[in-house]
Amino acid sequence: MAIELGYNQYGKAETRVVRVVRDTDRHEITDLNVSSALRGDLTAVHLDGSNANVLPTDTQKNTVFAFARDGISSPEEFGVRLARHYVDSQEPIHGAHLKLEQYTWTRHGDHTFSRGDGGEHRTAEIDYDGTDVKVTQGLRDLLLMNSTDSEFTGYIVDKYTTLAPATDRILATSVNAEWKVSDLDVDYNKAYETARNALIAAFRDTYSLSLQQTLYAIGEQIIKEVPQVSEVSLTLPNKHHFLVDLAPFGLENPGEVFYAADRPYGLIEGTVKRN
Amino acid sequence: MAIELGYNQYGKAETRVVRVVRDTDRHEITDLNVSSALRGDLTAVHLDGSNANVLPTDTQKNTVFAFARDGISSPEEFGVRLARHYVDSQEPIHGAHLKLEQYTWTRHGDHTFSRGDGGEHRTAEIDYDGTDVKVTQGLRDLLLMNSTDSEFTGYIVDKYTTLAPATDRILATSVNAEWKVSDLDVDYNKAYETARNALIAAFRDTYSLSLQQTLYAIGEQIIKEVPQVSEVSLTLPNKHHFLVDLAPFGLENPGEVFYAADRPYGLIEGTVKRN
Amino acid sequence: MAIELGYNQYGKAETRVVRVVRDTDRHEITDLNVSSALRGDLTAVHLDGSNANVLPTDTQKNTVFAFARDGISSPEEFGVRLARHYVDSQEPIHGAHLKLEQYTWTRHGDHTFSRGDGGEHRTAEIDYDGTDVKVTQGLRDLLLMNSTDSEFTGYIVDKYTTLAPATDRILATSVNAEWKVSDLDVDYNKAYETARNALIAAFRDTYSLSLQQTLYAIGEQIIKEVPQVSEVSLTLPNKHHFLVDLAPFGLENPGEVFYAADRPYGLIEGTVKRN
Amino acid sequence: MAIELGYNQYGKAETRVVRVVRDTDRHEITDLNVSSALRGDLTAVHLDGSNANVLPTDTQKNTVFAFARDGISSPEEFGVRLARHYVDSQEPIHGAHLKLEQYTWTRHGDHTFSRGDGGEHRTAEIDYDGTDVKVTQGLRDLLLMNSTDSEFTGYIVDKYTTLAPATDRILATSVNAEWKVSDLDVDYNKAYETARNALIAAFRDTYSLSLQQTLYAIGEQIIKEVPQVSEVSLTLPNKHHFLVDLAPFGLENPGEVFYAADRPYGLIEGTVKRN
Repeated sequence: MAIELGYNQYGKAETRVVRVVRDTDRHEITDLNVSSALRGDLTAVHLDGSNANVLPTDTQKNTVFAFARDGISSPEEFGVRLARHYVDSQEPIHGAHLKLEQYTWTRHGDHTFSRGDGGEHRTAEIDYDGTDVKVTQGLRDLLLMNSTDSEFTGYIVDKYTTLAPATDRILATSVNAEWKVSDLDVDYNKAYETARNALIAAFRDTYSLSLQQTLYAIGEQIIKEVPQVSEVSLTLPNKHHFLVDLAPFGLENPGEVFYAADRPYGLIEGTVKRN
Repeated sequence: MAIELGYNQYGKAETRVVRVVRDTDRHEITDLNVSSALRGDLTAVHLDGSNANVLPTDTQKNTVFAFARDGISSPEEFGVRLARHYVDSQEPIHGAHLKLEQYTWTRHGDHTFSRGDGGEHRTAEIDYDGTDVKVTQGLRDLLLMNSTDSEFTGYIVDKYTTLAPATDRILATSVNAEWKVSDLDVDYNKAYETARNALIAAFRDTYSLSLQQTLYAIGEQIIKEVPQVSEVSLTLPNKHHFLVDLAPFGLENPGEVFYAADRPYGLIEGTVKRN
Repeated sequence: MAIELGYNQYGKAETRVVRVVRDTDRHEITDLNVSSALRGDLTAVHLDGSNANVLPTDTQKNTVFAFARDGISSPEEFGVRLARHYVDSQEPIHGAHLKLEQYTWTRHGDHTFSRGDGGEHRTAEIDYDGTDVKVTQGLRDLLLMNSTDSEFTGYIVDKYTTLAPATDRILATSVNAEWKVSDLDVDYNKAYETARNALIAAFRDTYSLSLQQTLYAIGEQIIKEVPQVSEVSLTLPNKHHFLVDLAPFGLENPGEVFYAADRPYGLIEGTVKRN
Repeated sequence: MAIELGYNQYGKAETRVVRVVRDTDRHEITDLNVSSALRGDLTAVHLDGSNANVLPTDTQKNTVFAFARDGISSPEEFGVRLARHYVDSQEPIHGAHLKLEQYTWTRHGDHTFSRGDGGEHRTAEIDYDGTDVKVTQGLRDLLLMNSTDSEFTGYIVDKYTTLAPATDRILATSVNAEWKVSDLDVDYNKAYETARNALIAAFRDTYSLSLQQTLYAIGEQIIKEVPQVSEVSLTLPNKHHFLVDLAPFGLENPGEVFYAADRPYGLIEGTVKRN
């Protein structure tokens, strides 16, 4: 019996860096959570514990902070810069994968900001193998609701079916989206804003017969509006809002009182591609 | 040795009700998390398991949904209505305590909304003992940051002190606030908005020598601007942002690159009262 | 209109200290989460931002680590030692409140341990005002289930009742318990183990007609078995397990298939006292 | 410009089913969190909203409960049974992917159990495409610590290095492991127990020069002890425990007092394969 090492990578996860631009009295802040993962000649460290080819994860953390000093124009640009550094400066490191989360702050003054803790955030993912750079943008936990214009009818009925068709229901989902940016000659921040607006507009403007239809409409709209995007992947939990049966209490419920359920939930996943 | 029952209450926690107002094409939504707790003649259920005086928590859940049918003008009004119902309709129930959380949604169309999942939310707490109604408003998890105008110097130094004084630091906190409304002849929604705005303004406008000073300024400002408020209680975790030492990398760090720490964190608690 | 400062305290929350005893090859570990809060002459810091009476929360963190060097026989003893230090060494500090969580590890060898991340943990709470020391022990998130010997019948029925009586149901709860230790001449670790065992035994041995009855039985049993305990407070969420209706699929369900619900949940709170 | 649908699947996530075996007075419980995802002829639902090929996620939930009635010998067997049902009974469904989590309970009597809420749990993943069944076993959140026998030295030093070598450190990780079961003629429960014991033993018995070395040792040990396993994938967050510098307080710290850090953390990922 032979045993061998397969795919592996290592890195520093969740370095929380806040960069303040204070060139004028009106400060700007960039708030990031940075995770880096490196791959390369790492067989020896697995088999013998030799760290000769290991750039410590502590050093990766330090590098994030040091590079932040030069400014952060977008999470994508910052991630690309870090990825290139690791691979180009260390011979045993052949590839780098960066994941970044950006938290948005709302301005209340020259140096005062607020944000929702734990809410929606922007994401960026960068991969560099020494030759090619791949960039994916996205967002997570954007909670959207339509209080009407959603149906669910005409589905398969089998012996385990109890669901009644709905011709007017609440449709709510917590959007997790990623889109591949195939042309890197792009303004990342502008592309992000355009994609996010397209996403919300498609959700709003689709009369939905199923969450899959809404998913496809969102992907299509992002591809139409952002020329640099080649592919959109979406993960849409169906945050069920069940109409409460008020008949036992002598009341009608014409689409007014809903129970917001936690688990289980529908989970719709799909990819839409430019061809 | 004698053993006896002390204070007790029971209820249904976290009933998640969403109320849609669809009188016109432009829908309104109210999204609440409702917890009720009842007290009264409950010795028998503890000692003998007799449920004769127990209004089941399942019924409390049903009541929340049924009452929602009549409309929800504010979490305070809804909570008062529920509290009065439980105590006034059930002889063995002598008191009711309601806690409500309200999640805010941003409009994107006639029936389309978005919100941050898990972020800031409004709170209301109601107590009714059959005679008096007490109302407390508040908010939780409002994350605020000043990127300057904060110092921390002149503190006690003992043998365990290693902290260096700071004359320009980031001040960030996740505000948890509650304020007692002593005059119930009030527009709850307007009072809430005024208090929230006062809170943010006080945070923004205070040149802070300590987070306690900011806490007091917030409480004072809410009391000044909302005549019906008698008392403000604040719990302010100090979300430390540490200036990163970049000297080992040959770099200065003039208040630009910070590490956002998780634990441990300072925790400042205090009450400000109208006298 | 006069405005004044009410109750206040400040401190360092969640200092995570792990103490290894390595006097022999067979190591012992104590894993604690320590929060301290101080009170005293703190009006000036709130009104003027003067920190002259403020022992920084950073110093409180350092003190936890330095005191850990001397060994930790129990969270109670460690908390008492810290509380006395803050009040007795700093004139402006008049009171200290310590909260400690202890995470338990299972031994797998001389220096190898495992634990469940996020599960049950032991708690201790200490208050010292310069004269008296008060100690409360407890535990949180101990999830218990009886798969039978639980009923719920005979409750109030009103117009909002839909619940059917149950004569054989699952009873599950996540126990949060605190008990006051009125005689400090006690072996804290032994008292804790005795109380925890009494708690589980009372849950197991009570044929439950309501969760309140189980609550009282738990409190009574702890008081009977630990002479130093004067009062037990319990918060018991009723983790509902609903029998699934399998009739639509042509199946009976004789107490076998349950749906474990998240929200809403019953919440039963009560105190049992030695008299 | 053409736009087309790429990979997609949909299903019901997190159906929480508890199965009680009460054939004798000594009950057994199986506590599962079941997620199913289906794939097949689903273009129409994305493009036109036609649900004709959609087996509703609500029906998938019902199926889980109905199938639980027949008994659950292991999460793997239960998942395989569900996967086969969906694909074999519905022509438009071509593949099914099941993810199951199992929560373990400790017995305290014939029908009394306790468990840690949120701690370690067993996982199973099943894929069925109408022809082949693939089974992966695993566990998540098994927190392990060695209080010695761990070093980290000899790593790459660059201009961003500040870490000092460590010749005796705490090594702690929260194990996430998955192993492919290539021979399905196996006792899943026995295989799981053997693999879990091998994992803990390898962690304990490896004098670790790097967490990668420990990762490989764990994978190797599982493959050696469970003949049916072809491949082990591990994700090991390095739960850093930093030795606290007590020198400022005039104290030595010979490997006794540690600060358990949250973020950032090292993250080591790798696969070990039978060849």
